Amino acid sequence: MFKVGINGFGTIGGRVAAAVLKQNDMQLVGIADVSPSWRIHYASNNIPFFYGLRDYGSNENEQFEIAKKTFTDVKIEPKGTILDLINETDLIVDCTPKRVGQANKDKLYPKKNNLHAIFQGGEKASIAKVTFNAQINYKNAIGEKFIRIPSCNTTGMLRYLNSVQSVSDVKKVIVNLIRRGADPPEPRSGPINDYVPTGIPSHHAEDVIAADSRLGGKLITYGVSVPVTLMHMHNVIVFGSFPSREKILDAFHGNPRMVVIGGKETPTAAQVMEANERKNLYQIPILEKTIHLQGDTLLFSAYIHQEADVVPENIDAIRASLGYEDPQDSIGRTNRSLDLIGTKKKLESYFPVY
Amino acid sequence: MFKVGINGFGTIGGRVAAAVLKQNDMQLVGIADVSPSWRIHYASNNIPFFYGLRDYGSNENEQFEIAKKTFTDVKIEPKGTILDLINETDLIVDCTPKRVGQANKDKLYPKKNNLHAIFQGGEKASIAKVTFNAQINYKNAIGEKFIRIPSCNTTGMLRYLNSVQSVSDVKKVIVNLIRRGADPPEPRSGPINDYVPTGIPSHHAEDVIAADSRLGGKLITYGVSVPVTLMHMHNVIVFGSFPSREKILDAFHGNPRMVVIGGKETPTAAQVMEANERKNLYQIPILEKTIHLQGDTLLFSAYIHQEADVVPENIDAIRASLGYEDPQDSIGRTNRSLDLIGTKKKLESYFPVY
Amino acid sequence: MFKVGINGFGTIGGRVAAAVLKQNDMQLVGIADVSPSWRIHYASNNIPFFYGLRDYGSNENEQFEIAKKTFTDVKIEPKGTILDLINETDLIVDCTPKRVGQANKDKLYPKKNNLHAIFQGGEKASIAKVTFNAQINYKNAIGEKFIRIPSCNTTGMLRYLNSVQSVSDVKKVIVNLIRRGADPPEPRSGPINDYVPTGIPSHHAEDVIAADSRLGGKLITYGVSVPVTLMHMHNVIVFGSFPSREKILDAFHGNPRMVVIGGKETPTAAQVMEANERKNLYQIPILEKTIHLQGDTLLFSAYIHQEADVVPENIDAIRASLGYEDPQDSIGRTNRSLDLIGTKKKLESYFPVY
Amino acid sequence: MFKVGINGFGTIGGRVAAAVLKQNDMQLVGIADVSPSWRIHYASNNIPFFYGLRDYGSNENEQFEIAKKTFTDVKIEPKGTILDLINETDLIVDCTPKRVGQANKDKLYPKKNNLHAIFQGGEKASIAKVTFNAQINYKNAIGEKFIRIPSCNTTGMLRYLNSVQSVSDVKKVIVNLIRRGADPPEPRSGPINDYVPTGIPSHHAEDVIAADSRLGGKLITYGVSVPVTLMHMHNVIVFGSFPSREKILDAFHGNPRMVVIGGKETPTAAQVMEANERKNLYQIPILEKTIHLQGDTLLFSAYIHQEADVVPENIDAIRASLGYEDPQDSIGRTNRSLDLIGTKKKLESYFPVY
Repeated sequence: MFKVGINGFGTIGGRVAAAVLKQNDMQLVGIADVSPSWRIHYASNNIPFFYGLRDYGSNENEQFEIAKKTFTDVKIEPKGTILDLINETDLIVDCTPKRVGQANKDKLYPKKNNLHAIFQGGEKASIAKVTFNAQINYKNAIGEKFIRIPSCNTTGMLRYLNSVQSVSDVKKVIVNLIRRGADPPEPRSGPINDYVPTGIPSHHAEDVIAADSRLGGKLITYGVSVPVTLMHMHNVIVFGSFPSREKILDAFHGNPRMVVIGGKETPTAAQVMEANERKNLYQIPILEKTIHLQGDTLLFSAYIHQEADVVPENIDAIRASLGYEDPQDSIGRTNRSLDLIGTKKKLESYFPVY
Repeated sequence: MFKVGINGFGTIGGRVAAAVLKQNDMQLVGIADVSPSWRIHYASNNIPFFYGLRDYGSNENEQFEIAKKTFTDVKIEPKGTILDLINETDLIVDCTPKRVGQANKDKLYPKKNNLHAIFQGGEKASIAKVTFNAQINYKNAIGEKFIRIPSCNTTGMLRYLNSVQSVSDVKKVIVNLIRRGADPPEPRSGPINDYVPTGIPSHHAEDVIAADSRLGGKLITYGVSVPVTLMHMHNVIVFGSFPSREKILDAFHGNPRMVVIGGKETPTAAQVMEANERKNLYQIPILEKTIHLQGDTLLFSAYIHQEADVVPENIDAIRASLGYEDPQDSIGRTNRSLDLIGTKKKLESYFPVY
Repeated sequence: MFKVGINGFGTIGGRVAAAVLKQNDMQLVGIADVSPSWRIHYASNNIPFFYGLRDYGSNENEQFEIAKKTFTDVKIEPKGTILDLINETDLIVDCTPKRVGQANKDKLYPKKNNLHAIFQGGEKASIAKVTFNAQINYKNAIGEKFIRIPSCNTTGMLRYLNSVQSVSDVKKVIVNLIRRGADPPEPRSGPINDYVPTGIPSHHAEDVIAADSRLGGKLITYGVSVPVTLMHMHNVIVFGSFPSREKILDAFHGNPRMVVIGGKETPTAAQVMEANERKNLYQIPILEKTIHLQGDTLLFSAYIHQEADVVPENIDAIRASLGYEDPQDSIGRTNRSLDLIGTKKKLESYFPVY
Repeated sequence: MFKVGINGFGTIGGRVAAAVLKQNDMQLVGIADVSPSWRIHYASNNIPFFYGLRDYGSNENEQFEIAKKTFTDVKIEPKGTILDLINETDLIVDCTPKRVGQANKDKLYPKKNNLHAIFQGGEKASIAKVTFNAQINYKNAIGEKFIRIPSCNTTGMLRYLNSVQSVSDVKKVIVNLIRRGADPPEPRSGPINDYVPTGIPSHHAEDVIAADSRLGGKLITYGVSVPVTLMHMHNVIVFGSFPSREKILDAFHGNPRMVVIGGKETPTAAQVMEANERKNLYQIPILEKTIHLQGDTLLFSAYIHQEADVVPENIDAIRASLGYEDPQDSIGRTNRSLDLIGTKKKLESYFPVY
């Protein structure tokens, strides 16, 4: 039984916690956060939690006092501090905000002997030897003390480009990311009625290559934010040698962490989410009608459910880090526990390929 | 066992079907629709379905031929036509588009002896003797062949104004409806970056009064559509004599078909939906911090989850129409089967009143 | 010739500067800002400008060095610092961000003997004896060293409630503000697909009463932000004694700083802005079809062009502060110079009252 | 003096009319529309107008009677019918809705001997021998009785790809269009919070090639609609041989119908529109920081102001059709009359290239 703690209970932390609870080889020891957000209320009946720290190593007593007050105010009594939590766990999934993870790695996690940790894509690649994708480099991550899960966009690219590469010879890839402006419960983030170019090239290419070296020197990514909270959208252009449109479609179908969305008309992002019975879509939906092969040029579009696609990768990374040696078995366990297979089958039949 | 059929498998029809399946005193005989929308794919593995008709009484053979082709195209084989469906059922929940329900009542449903039918708020009040709200006029609806469920906005008003009236003497009510521009999977509807005034007074007041005559002559409603798909929002102003803010809050808390959303900061609509574990929110969320009592004037705001709040009313209306005589028992069965109680408890504790 | 400087060249500062240039009794001496935003490029060919300061009184030399660098980087050479600017002017229109105005009043503006200043609604009412509206309290402001122009929403309320009060006996007013989430060129502000309640009661009532004491104890304001950048929308409810709908309509028509928008269908906010030949709409558009009088209750809706409606008030406040004694004459000069009359006539005929 | 009439007074018709009024070699004889939209009120003081017809050739008397009533209702008295208008003009700019232009060409315009007509991009390419772009094929259009102006997106592509081709050897072009969901005053069009893929390949490539045969077989276009009303955005990928980034930038700078938008940060669409002093942006803004050259691959992004960029092309097409033989002179006259040069200079200096 892997003993797992979650540090940071936001969009990612909340979802990883729920997924850990569904694994029969993991125990969720507890959750730490610096303040009792509504997500903590949501969790508090079932899961022990702990005072978090914004910055371990500077005035932590004072920080605890502040945290204590905010919890007492809403009548929640944590079981202890993040220090207590790490003492009881084998591994922390660090879901704290950007750059806090690095500080935790430097100052907080060394307090417990041989504590493993999984970090998220907000941290630099240098935080861990492995930037992880279960289908690509699980084996490199076995036993690694620190592993990094790249961002939702990077995770999506790794999955679909892995499928494409499995049947093609890829020479160059350009991905235009249309980015959701904010997660749904972030009302202060925009834009409203605007396009916000987010830099060219974007950091995603580097991150993808960190996990999949086959794409080194071949990938350009860039993006623009728009007034959508639902999903990202990727418009993908691949140059190379391809067997046939059908073979590529088969490769997408064969990947359990993707779903091919067919239908007479290409469904919109909201239609895909409405067809999904649950709030989370762990797979990457590829839009079947957008797969366009013309000589050496392959185009297709995918949606990325930003809140969910990294969750199965976190679960597999926990196993890899703690020494579980069989990638296919880990992936299968994760897929079954989160019902990726059932959802995939349903979504692919709701939108049948004509 | 009440034998129920659904005619029209869109936003409402799909949700009512799912709710009927959860009732242990109802059997879902089948679903009819004029074309195999993705919602039908979603349903097709479990539930028999039937060719629908756009307009019974004019060239129905031709209409069947067209419907047949669209189903065959996607390899779905219906069990029969809507005529077969009505022959096997006691009651049809008509969830067809605006005004089709009236045509069905006139021309299609008389084909089966003593067929009962529930209509939705898109139909005129004159379609049925009772415009229904389970908490207000269930008893008037017992045994009624035809019952009409008013729209999501009207249903919301009926619930919260019922709670207010239960502890106050109400003289006048003005409701300003901020309306979501479209349901999520309706990409052709706007507006984008705009306000669209939708008439003053709006039809809602009349509908509310049809179900709750206490409000006759006292209610003005009007609205504006905005670029939101998530929920409606009601800003409610009530004049009258009120006991105390606390008593009104208690009345809201006491209503199982509402939830009081507390918290230090008033949550946004997206935060409420994110905190809800499921996609549907059957209750009306009242925002605790917006309840403002000043002499003879009471203000408060509510969100209305347009896709879901009418679902429990449809279930209760089925029972009433088919002669089930105990309102409280029906309401309780519906609430338990849809886990309204659990959701209410969780949501009210996620956002605790400070 | 009134010698005027602008401190802060953002949304308001840019528009006030353009308006000052159109007055034949004012000279725009210069503009100061802390950095060379694109708005300064826009202005730089015609108007001298000056290094601004974020916080006068603490390390201003260092601040100047930083400012200098950012200007040199884009090859703009200011004529001097804000200190030079105030030395050359009679009055500064302070359009700096929230609370910077108060700091300027305390530490910077005393550097020049008898310097007058106009502040905006981001500052507290206590910054000046007069919270100004030209049609209501111009006379109180004559010769005042410091005057405050309240926010766009407050200015709108002052105008339309003044018109209503001119023909009615008002007992109570409730204004529900639907607020644009951001100005158009602010891509980082949201919300997207959400309602954000912004507190009840909101600060606007207090501000309105600061300028119009007749409304003391009678006004409640509250609001919600939505995903729109175009305008605010006010849904106004007034209780009292009213002569007739026609008389109220006449009062609105008679106010040169409002426009009555008629037409068979109520135009949306975007339609009003499209019909306006210019980017700015200095008047408050009242939607004719929303004016609904029922006994002691009057309802109507207005749009508020947040970027523009305070501009004419700033111009009149300059005259009042510098001793110009005739309110009607100042208002008339401002209206003519900004073509309020022509726009009003055109807009009111584009959308004729049927 | 070219005698010009406008048929259809919507988004395009209104803007072309305003532009014709600014030409010193053209006379705007009048405007026809089937109903008195608010745009007609806007125009009515200055320009004669005429009853339009939805469908000439079927019951036109009845159609005139209906039109008459709608005009009489709002107290506007047209000068005559569209037949009277065409009798007084040399050329009609047909700005009617999709496909009405073809019907007009077939049945209405033959009523006047030798009437020339300009059609818009809603009509099929087959409506005219020339699909027009002033910088590319003006000479082919000289004396042509019928000319077609392609859509705003196609016009934008023609301009920037012409600039690229003027200094490069282009092998392949892929344009991903992010499309505004609606024009600002169209509140019924969506989407809200969604991506709507609009087909791959889209029709634009064919249209571009109709005007610029150099791109035959080289261009793929496809798109997605998003919740923005302000502009389209093009993400352009070109493969070929390029001299240098600087030379390409120079080519963009040298095109008077484009503006290069520089700046330290790439401005958003709303920031570009805010910086533009006017409501219309006739040029195509290229975002300087997005120009990314890497070997044989060139990427850049452009905004397209959908309401305005075709206006100068319409003006030049009028001259070409009526026999004006000097392309450069026509383009220059149009540019000066609409102040394209001044706007370009201002916008390019507001956002200086660092």
